[in-house]
Amino acid sequence: MPKSNKIYLDFASGALPNPSGIHAEGLRARKKLQNARSKVARILHSRSEEIIFTSGGTESNNLAIQGVVFAWQGKGLPHIITTNIEHSSVLETFKMFQKRKLAQITIVPVEPNGIVDPRKIKKSIKKNTVLVSVSYANNEIGTIQPIKEIAKSIRYFKKARAKSLVPSAYPLFHTDAVQAVNYLDLNVEKLGVDLLTLSGNKIENAGRVGILYKRKSVSLMSIFGGGNQEMGLRPGTENLPAIVEFGEALEFVQKIKEKETIRLTKLRDYFINKLLHSNILTNIGMILNGDSKNRLPNNVNITIPNIPSDLLVIELSARGITTSAKSACKAGDNKASHVIKALQVQGKALHSEQDGSLRFSLGRDTTKRKIDYTVKALSEILNKLKKWYI
Amino acid sequence: MPKSNKIYLDFASGALPNPSGIHAEGLRARKKLQNARSKVARILHSRSEEIIFTSGGTESNNLAIQGVVFAWQGKGLPHIITTNIEHSSVLETFKMFQKRKLAQITIVPVEPNGIVDPRKIKKSIKKNTVLVSVSYANNEIGTIQPIKEIAKSIRYFKKARAKSLVPSAYPLFHTDAVQAVNYLDLNVEKLGVDLLTLSGNKIENAGRVGILYKRKSVSLMSIFGGGNQEMGLRPGTENLPAIVEFGEALEFVQKIKEKETIRLTKLRDYFINKLLHSNILTNIGMILNGDSKNRLPNNVNITIPNIPSDLLVIELSARGITTSAKSACKAGDNKASHVIKALQVQGKALHSEQDGSLRFSLGRDTTKRKIDYTVKALSEILNKLKKWYI
Repeated sequence: MPKSNKIYLDFASGALPNPSGIHAEGLRARKKLQNARSKVARILHSRSEEIIFTSGGTESNNLAIQGVVFAWQGKGLPHIITTNIEHSSVLETFKMFQKRKLAQITIVPVEPNGIVDPRKIKKSIKKNTVLVSVSYANNEIGTIQPIKEIAKSIRYFKKARAKSLVPSAYPLFHTDAVQAVNYLDLNVEKLGVDLLTLSGNKIENAGRVGILYKRKSVSLMSIFGGGNQEMGLRPGTENLPAIVEFGEALEFVQKIKEKETIRLTKLRDYFINKLLHSNILTNIGMILNGDSKNRLPNNVNITIPNIPSDLLVIELSARGITTSAKSACKAGDNKASHVIKALQVQGKALHSEQDGSLRFSLGRDTTKRKIDYTVKALSEILNKLKKWYI
Repeated sequence: MPKSNKIYLDFASGALPNPSGIHAEGLRARKKLQNARSKVARILHSRSEEIIFTSGGTESNNLAIQGVVFAWQGKGLPHIITTNIEHSSVLETFKMFQKRKLAQITIVPVEPNGIVDPRKIKKSIKKNTVLVSVSYANNEIGTIQPIKEIAKSIRYFKKARAKSLVPSAYPLFHTDAVQAVNYLDLNVEKLGVDLLTLSGNKIENAGRVGILYKRKSVSLMSIFGGGNQEMGLRPGTENLPAIVEFGEALEFVQKIKEKETIRLTKLRDYFINKLLHSNILTNIGMILNGDSKNRLPNNVNITIPNIPSDLLVIELSARGITTSAKSACKAGDNKASHVIKALQVQGKALHSEQDGSLRFSLGRDTTKRKIDYTVKALSEILNKLKKWYI
């Protein structure tokens, strides 16, 4: 009897095999899963068993933070450190733990250019600090954090403590690298991180899954109760089709990374320069949010005082230009972005609390001509709107 | 300038739009999301805003249990009730909460036929009981639980308490309906449940997402810290392509439900009858696990004493028949199934602790001819193996 004449025809059996079965189909699925895991591990310079597949970046960040806190067996409340411009999946998890009295938290403010000072991180480390979580690159303003320097500070703290007290694996260091994936170095050894988050949402053609890299020595507790999938750290049937796509897509973007980074950095600087030298934008008092150089090659983020940024998004959209006001990950939230606010209180005062930010994301199809078109369109819109708002 | 000449070309923008953006693309994505949510709501006879999309069944079950426990504002530890044959994503979450001292738990044993007695559930309800979680149909042996009767018991308890004490919304009632989706009634009003889990993994052509139905009046806390997606109860960018697929697939299986249920029930009974009347199986002492009638139309689960079920899976697989030994959701776990064990201690003793179970899942392509072939293949395999094992 041919293989297609199987009696097992559970609805999902054909297209969506379960890698946990021991039948022939299950074995094939498991091989595909291991293959995808090896691909990711090679790019991160890690071991295969250090790669955990999750449902996305939000879950990976939660697994890193909640997982470390719940695994801690020390005395008293654990202490965790982050910055004030993290993605909501980090910041809100910190606040949730503080509220539930499961952890003490320290939120270190970034400098006016949107970059954290590693010395301030180091100063905030305490005896019961179990985790430092700093994003590799910011999701709104694209500023790149000094991950290697922070890792060095933490190692220095551990060494100094090892002399006088019991040696300890803590504090662990986590970085949310979701925004960095297409442009920055992902070698976990060079970065010196213990935990690293990636998301398929920010990788061309990748499936909607997330990654948490977890150094082998790190103790982590699962957030979910359930099966033993993903080394017992992430129960639930693996989303195999998306995982396979993720592995392939990650491989591809690594290949074009260097070239795209050079090309987009040039375009980004050309774009910023054009904005800074536009008459109407200078008159209105445009602010470039975040460091002008130490930022992702694909990110330009500006504040245009007094004119609602939502309105600008809609006007630009009508001209075929897709932008984003504030963080798109915080749906239905009308308050000013916590990232822009973090820059604001540190110096560069914005004109009004209502002032939002406008993010342009450059990509593989972005050209000089499109940038020229965008600056022209923005100038026209502002010339039309200024009489109503300024 | 045509719409395709957009400057925004963030890697994921084309294929994977983010429904949280306010630009034109974001609006289109949000409409698709709302449309999928309405489809699911119509089938469950619920409101749209009562449907939460998650990454799968394991997460939905965790959100229901963890969400209710964390939202409880009452005095002392909350108490939660379940049965001893639940899916690991329910049972292990209960045990995790007990271990972390976040909840008291009661695990009610099922009867020898794999069905729970509603009176035993009712008896175990205490003043601080916040949740009862009983699966609609079991994932290994397919037995169908008396959900309506349990709901009635809980309502009766609430009414009786309301007379003497303060009225309370608790205990809430959750059912894991992952296995029931293709065959049983999903009307949440008729069932009388407050929370209900579904998973795309068990629906033909559905995307890999999960559903948690949450009655509007139920207080739930998010497991993840993060953005405000899914009514603030499930942060993280929505997996829109999979969600759209889920809505369409759920609609389709509802249409063919009645016909398939009748067809498969006949085939299942034919299959069970053939197994029970096979000479070799009778001689070996085959046991049918779970109630012979009150089970899913697509489930046949047997124990063949003394012969390792893993070996039977491999032998059957070589003949093109895909089966599953124990629960496929518990990967790498070599211990006997907790479901089969639950039946075992209640009477029908199996010959050995090592005896596993063999699950046949019938589906849309299953025919009488394939069942005949399967019974014949199984007999041949047993005739070959019996001299080594019995």
